Amino acid sequence: MADSTPASDTPAAFGDPIYREGVIELLGVIAYGELSAFERLAEDAKLAPSLRDKAELAQMAQAELGHFFGLRDRLESLGVDPYAAMEPFEESFTRFHVQTAPSDWLEGLVKAFVGDGLAADFYREIAAYLDVDTRALVLESLDGTGNSAFVVTRVREAIEADPTIAGRLALWGRRLMGEALSQAQLVAAEHDGLTAVLVGGSDRAGGMDLAAIGRMFARMTENHAGRMAELGLDS
Amino acid sequence: MADSTPASDTPAAFGDPIYREGVIELLGVIAYGELSAFERLAEDAKLAPSLRDKAELAQMAQAELGHFFGLRDRLESLGVDPYAAMEPFEESFTRFHVQTAPSDWLEGLVKAFVGDGLAADFYREIAAYLDVDTRALVLESLDGTGNSAFVVTRVREAIEADPTIAGRLALWGRRLMGEALSQAQLVAAEHDGLTAVLVGGSDRAGGMDLAAIGRMFARMTENHAGRMAELGLDS
Repeated sequence: MADSTPASDTPAAFGDPIYREGVIELLGVIAYGELSAFERLAEDAKLAPSLRDKAELAQMAQAELGHFFGLRDRLESLGVDPYAAMEPFEESFTRFHVQTAPSDWLEGLVKAFVGDGLAADFYREIAAYLDVDTRALVLESLDGTGNSAFVVTRVREAIEADPTIAGRLALWGRRLMGEALSQAQLVAAEHDGLTAVLVGGSDRAGGMDLAAIGRMFARMTENHAGRMAELGLDS
Repeated sequence: MADSTPASDTPAAFGDPIYREGVIELLGVIAYGELSAFERLAEDAKLAPSLRDKAELAQMAQAELGHFFGLRDRLESLGVDPYAAMEPFEESFTRFHVQTAPSDWLEGLVKAFVGDGLAADFYREIAAYLDVDTRALVLESLDGTGNSAFVVTRVREAIEADPTIAGRLALWGRRLMGEALSQAQLVAAEHDGLTAVLVGGSDRAGGMDLAAIGRMFARMTENHAGRMAELGLDS
């Protein structure tokens, strides 16, 4: 944004209805993602082999919920019903989580780590295309749970104790990434406003072109591989 | 406590091994209660008829988890493994939650409201018998979720729409109270240290006598009836 209007609840960028619609869709999809991440982490915490592990995963769930409340409040301050903005994304997230329900504690940990990482990558990538206020909020949602180290330690310990599980978890990581990309493509295809924010509306300079979106996905895939390696897993 | 030692991580009261053991058990049982309340509220949020309702219940879950972390950190600062302090109470809470799994959204709401209220009553009752630091922490766990109003509104709306459900929910409230009391009695019977804090150790003045404990339960039952009435339900 070349706009230099001071930050406010309704910055000048929102005068552009295509931008406004796109940002509302974007906040809606991220909000739904955070709320469903909370739900799934709380659910997967049940698989924890110990109370300590359960508390660690619950802490990750809590961080996602905190992000959700920030996004919800932002939508409200834009005069939007946050739940109405979220609802169009319910099906995609439900489909993703049904397709990727962990069958045990380790799969749950890998999913938490990979999902958190992908979301963070996506937030970082899109931040540049947003107005100042929205960008600040999206970057706040990056505030890590601080629990990545816990996941890395637990997964590496488990592989050390039984190296045969590495193959299964590597496959699981590939499946997570595949499902995430496939749902992301569906979401982008179904929500023009959202993609318009990224590719730029007809009357707006800036935004990514399609080649840039391709490069974004390439970077995200590369970062995913880095995270899998951190866990001691092939990607 | 007549003790005027300044507050610290290990106040003078902890020089009394009976008191120390009792407080550790007390913090352990409350910590387990908060963590399991988080789990159950997150689980019951799935029953929500709308995203808005889900978010409200998730917010209650988050508040319980915040209390849990405070209690866990306090146990750690006392040099105790918090999870070891919690484990003896796992069975009682699991039994309670299995016996009181809500069969629908409204039962979940009533359980959240009743459970939250009972816990708050208990914290308030025992606070007087604790050293300054422990008391402050226990009273902090009283910080409501601020969502009681939401539960009251939803339950009253539901009864207005269909008055026949009031009977079923009233029965449900009685069952919750009965299970809570029965588990509380088992916990007290099995954990001498905990009850010693309340009734006072042999070498300690203060503490409740058994008649006072009886009156405490009477007050809690009365408050429970008040909460049921707030929901528009007989007790």
